[in-house]
Amino acid sequence: MKQSKVFIPTMKEVPAGAEALSHRLLLKAGLIKQSTSGIYSYLPLAARVLNNIEEIIREEMESIDAVEILMPALQQSELWEESGRWDAYGPELMRLKDRHGREFALGPTHEEVVTSIVRDELKSYKQLPLTLFQIQSKFRDEKRPRFGLLRGREFIMKDAYSFHADEDSLDATYGDMYGAYDRIFKRVGINARPVLADSGAIGGSHTHEFMALSEIGEDTIVYSEESDYAANIEKAEVVYYPNEKHDEIKPLTKIETPHIQTAKALADFLDKPLDEITKSMIFKVEGEFIMVLVRGHHEINDIKLKAYFKTDNIELATEDEIVNLLGAKPGSLGPIFDKEVKIYADNFIKDLNNIVVGANEDGYHYLNANVDRDFTVTEYGDFRFILEGEPLSDGSGVAHFAEGIEVGQVFKLGTKYSESMNATFLNNQGKAQPLLMGCYGIGVSRTLSAIVEQNNDENGIIWPKSVTPFDLHLITINPKKDDQRELGDQLYAQLKENYDVLYDDRKERAGVKFNDADLIGLPIRVMVGKNAAEGIVEVKRRDTGESDDVHVDNLINHVNQLFTSI
Amino acid sequence: MKQSKVFIPTMKEVPAGAEALSHRLLLKAGLIKQSTSGIYSYLPLAARVLNNIEEIIREEMESIDAVEILMPALQQSELWEESGRWDAYGPELMRLKDRHGREFALGPTHEEVVTSIVRDELKSYKQLPLTLFQIQSKFRDEKRPRFGLLRGREFIMKDAYSFHADEDSLDATYGDMYGAYDRIFKRVGINARPVLADSGAIGGSHTHEFMALSEIGEDTIVYSEESDYAANIEKAEVVYYPNEKHDEIKPLTKIETPHIQTAKALADFLDKPLDEITKSMIFKVEGEFIMVLVRGHHEINDIKLKAYFKTDNIELATEDEIVNLLGAKPGSLGPIFDKEVKIYADNFIKDLNNIVVGANEDGYHYLNANVDRDFTVTEYGDFRFILEGEPLSDGSGVAHFAEGIEVGQVFKLGTKYSESMNATFLNNQGKAQPLLMGCYGIGVSRTLSAIVEQNNDENGIIWPKSVTPFDLHLITINPKKDDQRELGDQLYAQLKENYDVLYDDRKERAGVKFNDADLIGLPIRVMVGKNAAEGIVEVKRRDTGESDDVHVDNLINHVNQLFTSI
Repeated sequence: MKQSKVFIPTMKEVPAGAEALSHRLLLKAGLIKQSTSGIYSYLPLAARVLNNIEEIIREEMESIDAVEILMPALQQSELWEESGRWDAYGPELMRLKDRHGREFALGPTHEEVVTSIVRDELKSYKQLPLTLFQIQSKFRDEKRPRFGLLRGREFIMKDAYSFHADEDSLDATYGDMYGAYDRIFKRVGINARPVLADSGAIGGSHTHEFMALSEIGEDTIVYSEESDYAANIEKAEVVYYPNEKHDEIKPLTKIETPHIQTAKALADFLDKPLDEITKSMIFKVEGEFIMVLVRGHHEINDIKLKAYFKTDNIELATEDEIVNLLGAKPGSLGPIFDKEVKIYADNFIKDLNNIVVGANEDGYHYLNANVDRDFTVTEYGDFRFILEGEPLSDGSGVAHFAEGIEVGQVFKLGTKYSESMNATFLNNQGKAQPLLMGCYGIGVSRTLSAIVEQNNDENGIIWPKSVTPFDLHLITINPKKDDQRELGDQLYAQLKENYDVLYDDRKERAGVKFNDADLIGLPIRVMVGKNAAEGIVEVKRRDTGESDDVHVDNLINHVNQLFTSI
Repeated sequence: MKQSKVFIPTMKEVPAGAEALSHRLLLKAGLIKQSTSGIYSYLPLAARVLNNIEEIIREEMESIDAVEILMPALQQSELWEESGRWDAYGPELMRLKDRHGREFALGPTHEEVVTSIVRDELKSYKQLPLTLFQIQSKFRDEKRPRFGLLRGREFIMKDAYSFHADEDSLDATYGDMYGAYDRIFKRVGINARPVLADSGAIGGSHTHEFMALSEIGEDTIVYSEESDYAANIEKAEVVYYPNEKHDEIKPLTKIETPHIQTAKALADFLDKPLDEITKSMIFKVEGEFIMVLVRGHHEINDIKLKAYFKTDNIELATEDEIVNLLGAKPGSLGPIFDKEVKIYADNFIKDLNNIVVGANEDGYHYLNANVDRDFTVTEYGDFRFILEGEPLSDGSGVAHFAEGIEVGQVFKLGTKYSESMNATFLNNQGKAQPLLMGCYGIGVSRTLSAIVEQNNDENGIIWPKSVTPFDLHLITINPKKDDQRELGDQLYAQLKENYDVLYDDRKERAGVKFNDADLIGLPIRVMVGKNAAEGIVEVKRRDTGESDDVHVDNLINHVNQLFTSI
């Protein structure tokens, strides 16, 4: 297409606040435009890349016998009430009422709808397995949208759902999907690593996330250098090996700790190592207050709490609630109190005695608190994030960290939805059983971001050939000169027979055109300039920057070879 | 694909209430499934047809230099407030609040968003014209969803928006779009006729609808047999040629008309022709009551009222409002009263004197009412629907009627949005001017319905080759027989090299398979049956029903020829 007809509003300066590299590049190269917080329009170049990504996804889905459908974004509340998620989902679920006052969700995901579709129709094991997928805009009212397309409120997903008569069949499709995802991410040009992930509080038994390695790191990946082990830090298990520091039990002593708010400040004030201090935090688990204890150098992992308590309904208590409950502010909390509040301690608390805890009185702590003598632990468990260098649960060595963006997830749902929504089939003994289900997502707009995050240099994007918005960038350096314009027009007509060509016919300065071309980042650039009269043009690779002067008679050949080699 | 892996829940009986033929066929052939009123899922066959339709649209859009983008469904209320439509749009606009209480519309259309995108970027006449399009799910909270996909609440649209420096450029793109629409509807296999349409109360100067002729007739098309004239009946102008029936003026006489509610009943009761009776109706125009008078055999056209009063905010007064206003129920209304209510009369009222009107007293009418003596007409105008056989406004002859489904619309918006939203460019004299705009829609899911509405027989759908979900239906009649199953598998492998093949490998009875195949309606069916051992299969056209026994050695050839000829 002629660039003058395409809408590519490149920018010199990106707005402040665009933290992620992909966000800055997508804005700068004129691919996206923000409508409001977390909501974007995809401009022409982005729309072309999305279409290419979607085509690759369709091919790979079809190769594993997944079949495309399209379900509605508007989902009546009744379906979500059947599954129990109308109440459980929280404020990320966008809700609205129609003109008759009936309630709807804007689909963030489609387990309920797809289950309602198949439950009337899949009645026999003979119809199984079945895998359905769709590509569609989804909605999630993120509290803090950020990183451009990476954490938006309206985004494009490929979601797939599979239905099975038995675990072997579910395992087989899970494996097929895993393989297809691997191929999809390779084909679109991103380095994505499958990692073990948390399956969430509600349903599901087994799940992997596909993480595109990236600077920005929405997620931290914990991996082994000695084995295939890789897990989301939310999920990575901490192995408890006792390493006790038990001294002689000392008497509980209350001390004044004026203005001390953090474990770090307390350790400095007492001149003790941070790992000998404890942190006490109050959570509300389905409305009930509990206290969680960890050591000073550890961080509480609320995902593990959710898995432990099997609920998504867990949040940190507010300062008001805490003051009301224990009479002190968050900086001075501790496990010694006279209330009906259960205490859950991280396993590594066991290693200590004579510990320092808040006194539940602002500005005071206790020294030498001891379990059982001064307070009671209801249960020990793995409630914290692993640290780099700690042993991994597969025994292969120690934890290494990398940053990543989740671009896909495969998930064994089991019978959570089929049981609650009564989706049963008759097995080969004629007995009604709930369908086994899997679900499988790819963030399509996130994948677009991840591609840009991984394929760029200081001048702009470098599109992988498989998804590039156009194959070639044909640039007439000075279209006011007849020889250049005429040769440009002629080459455009020739090249577009075999390639998607973006033809920069604009009457802009050469510098502007070259800057835009670098930003836009098409694999091959053909420049018609001062040697046009001799039939010589310059052909340049975007990735390596290598360029050659080529006679137009040999141009098609040269471009064919170059394009194949990229 | 193997039919056992595709989800095609064909039905024997369609639910009561599916009025439109396309609705019944789409349900029966397993293409769609209702989620709730006016909201559907597209099952695998429908998703494939939609993808084919969309591909044809993309090609034709690209051929006229329209460029694809994708805008969000979630549209912040601020944009709609700028254009004035947040208040004007009414209950069809679905609205919601995000977690911060900010208001959003679910896009039924994207004039506001697209204008907000380009206004920051299109600054010079040198960047014009520009045409952007997208294909996307839209939302409209229809009061009475019906006819399946034809009048749904969530539906797929292709919408395009063009931006221009001058009228000539807008005219040129309008013409290009008109041509592209013509090609698109031909290519997807529907007979669609462009008709003049009403441009609505708010903005716009010139518009055509593309109407697919159909039994169901959501719209009535008025056309000429002598010229190209075709218009939506909402728009079709009624030409007033005086045809006066003026008798000697008689004295006003009140008569008792017990239980008379309608013009027809009144005519019978008085033994007068219906066209000598009048009908009086009360409307509320932006809150103000008016009376509209037409003759007994005419029907008031509220679209013309909206155009006349230049507002969408017109509705019929309720019975309570009428009783309150005039002291009588709707059956006994008339223009003789002592209130500040303006009277608008259809032009054809001029032809009568000594007319019969309601007395504004239940059960009473006046005979011999006369304009100016008994009441005052504020204005005469064209306030009614044309009747079949009346003269057409282009002078070419008389009105003929046909029923149709609107599948597309092209629309000159002018500067309505660019002015209210301050989208200006500098013209070639350096002067800031509002952008001229056009907008152009195709109902993609409606087009799917219209294709089915026009391409079927008593046994099911007959897909046009251009959009068919699969090219060939390969059916093994009895896959339990080794020779049939083996030949079927072998042909499947061969045929799918060049065609999209749906391979019915299901262990179902032959009758079930043939019924399903007729319903599903792929262009060519290849049946492997009792002559499999001799290498003979049956090849059948879905449209004509013609079939041939073909030896497998000649099958590819035969299918190639047949497929080309369809």
